[in-house]
Amino acid sequence: MSGQDALVVFTPSGRRGRFPLGSSLLQAARSLGVDIDSVCGGRGICGRCQVLVAEGEFSKHGVTSCVDNLSPVSAVEQEYCATQPMAPGRRLSCSAQVLGDLVIDVPSSSQVHKQVVRKAAEALDIELDPLVRLHYVEVQEPDMHDPSGDLRRLEDALDFEWQLSDLSCDVLVLQQLQTALRAGAWKVTVAVHAGKQIIAVWPGFKEHVYGLAVDVGSTTIAAHLCNLASGEVVASAGVMNPQIRFGEDLMSRVSYVMMNPGGEVEMTAAVRAALNELAVDVAAQAGISPQDILEATFVGNPIMHHLLLGINPVELGGAPFALATDRAITLWAVEIDFAIHRNARIYVLPCIAGHVGADTAGVILAERPDLNDKITLLVDVGTNAEIVLGNNQRLLACSSPTGPAFEGAQISCGQRAAPGAIERVRIDPVTLEPRFKVIGSDLWSDDPGFDAAVAATGVTGVCGSGIIEALAEMYLAGIIRHDGVINGDLSARNPRIQPDGRTFSYELYRATADAPPLKVMQNDVRAIQLGKAALYAGVRLLMERMGVQTVDRIRLAGAFGSHIDVKYAMVLGMIPDCVLSEVSSAGNAAGTGARIALLDQRARGDIEALVRRVEKIETAVEPRFQEIFVEAMALPHLTDPFVELRKVVKLPERVAINNEQNARSRRGPRARAPDAAA
Amino acid sequence: MSGQDALVVFTPSGRRGRFPLGSSLLQAARSLGVDIDSVCGGRGICGRCQVLVAEGEFSKHGVTSCVDNLSPVSAVEQEYCATQPMAPGRRLSCSAQVLGDLVIDVPSSSQVHKQVVRKAAEALDIELDPLVRLHYVEVQEPDMHDPSGDLRRLEDALDFEWQLSDLSCDVLVLQQLQTALRAGAWKVTVAVHAGKQIIAVWPGFKEHVYGLAVDVGSTTIAAHLCNLASGEVVASAGVMNPQIRFGEDLMSRVSYVMMNPGGEVEMTAAVRAALNELAVDVAAQAGISPQDILEATFVGNPIMHHLLLGINPVELGGAPFALATDRAITLWAVEIDFAIHRNARIYVLPCIAGHVGADTAGVILAERPDLNDKITLLVDVGTNAEIVLGNNQRLLACSSPTGPAFEGAQISCGQRAAPGAIERVRIDPVTLEPRFKVIGSDLWSDDPGFDAAVAATGVTGVCGSGIIEALAEMYLAGIIRHDGVINGDLSARNPRIQPDGRTFSYELYRATADAPPLKVMQNDVRAIQLGKAALYAGVRLLMERMGVQTVDRIRLAGAFGSHIDVKYAMVLGMIPDCVLSEVSSAGNAAGTGARIALLDQRARGDIEALVRRVEKIETAVEPRFQEIFVEAMALPHLTDPFVELRKVVKLPERVAINNEQNARSRRGPRARAPDAAA
Repeated sequence: MSGQDALVVFTPSGRRGRFPLGSSLLQAARSLGVDIDSVCGGRGICGRCQVLVAEGEFSKHGVTSCVDNLSPVSAVEQEYCATQPMAPGRRLSCSAQVLGDLVIDVPSSSQVHKQVVRKAAEALDIELDPLVRLHYVEVQEPDMHDPSGDLRRLEDALDFEWQLSDLSCDVLVLQQLQTALRAGAWKVTVAVHAGKQIIAVWPGFKEHVYGLAVDVGSTTIAAHLCNLASGEVVASAGVMNPQIRFGEDLMSRVSYVMMNPGGEVEMTAAVRAALNELAVDVAAQAGISPQDILEATFVGNPIMHHLLLGINPVELGGAPFALATDRAITLWAVEIDFAIHRNARIYVLPCIAGHVGADTAGVILAERPDLNDKITLLVDVGTNAEIVLGNNQRLLACSSPTGPAFEGAQISCGQRAAPGAIERVRIDPVTLEPRFKVIGSDLWSDDPGFDAAVAATGVTGVCGSGIIEALAEMYLAGIIRHDGVINGDLSARNPRIQPDGRTFSYELYRATADAPPLKVMQNDVRAIQLGKAALYAGVRLLMERMGVQTVDRIRLAGAFGSHIDVKYAMVLGMIPDCVLSEVSSAGNAAGTGARIALLDQRARGDIEALVRRVEKIETAVEPRFQEIFVEAMALPHLTDPFVELRKVVKLPERVAINNEQNARSRRGPRARAPDAAA
Repeated sequence: MSGQDALVVFTPSGRRGRFPLGSSLLQAARSLGVDIDSVCGGRGICGRCQVLVAEGEFSKHGVTSCVDNLSPVSAVEQEYCATQPMAPGRRLSCSAQVLGDLVIDVPSSSQVHKQVVRKAAEALDIELDPLVRLHYVEVQEPDMHDPSGDLRRLEDALDFEWQLSDLSCDVLVLQQLQTALRAGAWKVTVAVHAGKQIIAVWPGFKEHVYGLAVDVGSTTIAAHLCNLASGEVVASAGVMNPQIRFGEDLMSRVSYVMMNPGGEVEMTAAVRAALNELAVDVAAQAGISPQDILEATFVGNPIMHHLLLGINPVELGGAPFALATDRAITLWAVEIDFAIHRNARIYVLPCIAGHVGADTAGVILAERPDLNDKITLLVDVGTNAEIVLGNNQRLLACSSPTGPAFEGAQISCGQRAAPGAIERVRIDPVTLEPRFKVIGSDLWSDDPGFDAAVAATGVTGVCGSGIIEALAEMYLAGIIRHDGVINGDLSARNPRIQPDGRTFSYELYRATADAPPLKVMQNDVRAIQLGKAALYAGVRLLMERMGVQTVDRIRLAGAFGSHIDVKYAMVLGMIPDCVLSEVSSAGNAAGTGARIALLDQRARGDIEALVRRVEKIETAVEPRFQEIFVEAMALPHLTDPFVELRKVVKLPERVAINNEQNARSRRGPRARAPDAAA
């Protein structure tokens, strides 16, 4: 038999078998269960099934492989090459035939279940396994001697060529099917959803369809357009959430509905209109039609989630904060008036509890703390902080009312993160003089050319990460005491410390003598104290419930997590002690979760099961939350973790801080002893 | 144990068991699998679970049963009785408790799977088993200590009280759920579709929901509104199909689309608008809201079917007459813009072939020829006749292009069946004088007072059944010869036989000497000959394919079948020989099929399987069809069946007809010999 068949080994899978000479590589791969993509069903049109011959002797496999053991480049391959670029040595496995022993490499781009590499190195790659798949088929023409509907013959072809059976079919497809079949001369490409439902049909060969992963935030709506075949993000865009005109934050939007019955309908219409703009925007960027978007996934906090779906959010505005549903939702694009392909399916990740939304489900899906032995703390800071703690044993979640201070709101000099906003602050512990950086310039304020660099915008305010740094540096410099009071005694040392009514303030910046200054007021410190106490109390409550004193890793999700310098968050006691190298930003983890749910159908089952498993803690009914909150109002004693922080923040060796010393010191931080830790 | 439990026997099922004293009858029945209805889950609200105690000694069961063995009428039952009429002796089985041995009769009205008796005595009853069921539940209030969505708690209640699990939920329900739960003080009624999907929710107890069975005809659209709990038809209505303005018959509507691309959109909009009017009409008749209609089923010929669904029908206008689909279709009411409950499900029966539509599927479902040993011929006559032949072994179907003559169209004196139209005709074979009846009067034209009775409308034309009778009577009287020629020789005997160009006509009626007469022209005879030849050829083709020379039963469906006197159809040779008592009208069998599919979910599976089994014959490509058609153009020799017909038609004993005698006779039918049969 060895004269008539040959050994073929596929890498990287290592699957192997003997095949009759003349077999196509694609047939051979399929019979071995080797993962090779194909849309056109082996007709040399789609180019998805490209492979390479590995040349040489592979003693492990007992094979000597060379290109001569494969049939010469065929006319079909030449035709494909003429229109599409093909890397040297690549062959279409549907066309190339086995002439002798071979080792065939299947590059990852030719695999159906390829890995989509994520940017952040520490995160897991995404396994590509989209629900929507394209299939090119040739359909039998109708025959009066054996009458049958066009749909039945299409289904017969899908069954014969793709082993897809018991399919159902949307009525829109039926409306387009007869025209498509005839326009395509009985060759069409269909999109099949979850191997069950025909949701779209195009005449002839259709190469690409797309999916949209959307994070509906209270402030901004962000969308990533992905090619469902490659998993690649082909366009991204964000728009302001137009619901802002009904209320800046979540509670004011719920209040709007309470005061204006029916107001939820306006807000639903507003967010849906913005989604349609976004879809048009990303489609235009990618040079495709919104009609080529066949799937979309959504994350958002519970109120955004409900408003997107047209559910009145008033129940979320007061105890017992009952969600309409804590299940994932699958529906049609038309049901939310989403003007992508009419049959596109929408998947909305599940909310977890009244204050812990589908955005947190997205964070969990992006970070998968349940796959790790280590105890991970996930924090997504907004007006509410959504907090998840756990590992492969348990997962707990709660929400904590941090207020908007961390986003620069309700801070006298606060502003949104935008050019002109101070985002980095350093204060000299000796002179108490500040220097800073603003968004839009890489220069520090004491660098030459700074004024020119920021001339266009000016220095307009302080953003969320800037206020954290300002307060932490003020604390490290002794300007703020352990109890949060701005130390007026220091006004003698530096005129930036100024009386303001019955308390003191610290002037960060003043453009000219006549211009209004940017000052950190005592009330600003109080707002941050309240927020950080709430955050810390939520975290601590989960730690107590879990029975742990420390966490192994901290991942900060969202815009705040991306911009904040985590050591300052630790200086202020926002987050619990942790080895600094284990504290990092998770980026827009909620949006990443939406992208994973878009690209990997199994991830949907995973997050639905995980969300059910999560132990939901309602901070509002936990007396311990109040206790910890009160304790956490003060700024922390910088004890053990400070030893490490000191290295990172590069404080003078002798500078250390604690409340007692702050309280008694009149000589400034220089005088503080390094043994102050208590 | 006999002191603490008792024997309970349920009739008519005969199920029996021993139950602890104090058990409720409903619990006892359920544990035995006795079919008792309930919506409220045993709360004494719905009254669906009523039973009767059978009193006396039942030696067969070994029971002595008396009302004293049942607990006295409870407060719950008294409360129910106070608002709802209840027949004497009836008890609510959810409230009545077993105190001793009992024989309990479950009346059919209390059974879930009750039989719905159909009007036509010979037809099968409908087994009531609707897809939409109501369930009243009490839902747990939300609890912050154990947060869960309102939907999950609703699902938990449905699982606990009704053993309904793994339900999905439409987004519209989610939008209404929270309000309904709170308005109903955590008691709601939900509609569950097919035991799988929550499609509607109402606060408190909801007693009735409805379904609509619709027959979309080319000329009229007819709808029956049914109570889904009782199966009862509570309202019926019909409207003209507004597509008539685009073309009188089917082919002219397809032509309209061919000439006016996009015209199918107008026609789809027109039929959907008419459906919405119909729904409003029947709902108003029944005193309900269209929002209480939760299910609808549709039948219609292929072109009506496609236009209803928004599918361009042009492919049905020419060979190979390819249907978009030959499957049944389930979709949402909104998908066809049907303004009943938004989540109502629509079920469209399957089309069979390009000319054999979902209406024929409805006829098959209504008549179930597959359940009978006898060979049944089903004929639905319209512009096309749809023909089904078969029994429990085989089913065959075809369509035959009879043209519109049977409906009175393309007949010189023809008109629609409406007041003033001649519908019955008798011709004296001796005098050749006609007498007739018109629609709207019970008098014959030679009865006293006839002129006064029809004064309002006059005698305006001849409808389909009238033209059949006129021709058959003319034939029986010898005025029309075997070859279809009006015998001009008879003009000597009666001036009603008149020359009209190169042929002759027969004057049926003339109001005054000056008024235009109603005449049967030679061309009218030709049109009927063509139609009946087509019908007969279709029937005969199926008979040949099935290998039978005779059929056992003939059922004539549709308006034509309801109005025609079948013996005249047989005289003209429209239908094959059959014992006259086995030829009958099936009424609006297509509409009945839609009603069955509405009320009995299993019927849907049955008809889908049956339709696949049907052997489809395309007459257009059958050479035998043409041969039989040509042969069938002549009027039949009245041979054996004539012996029977003679009794029924009550011809003079000596009158008999055949072509030869017609051809040679100059003396009229009187002279024809009874032995003429050849």
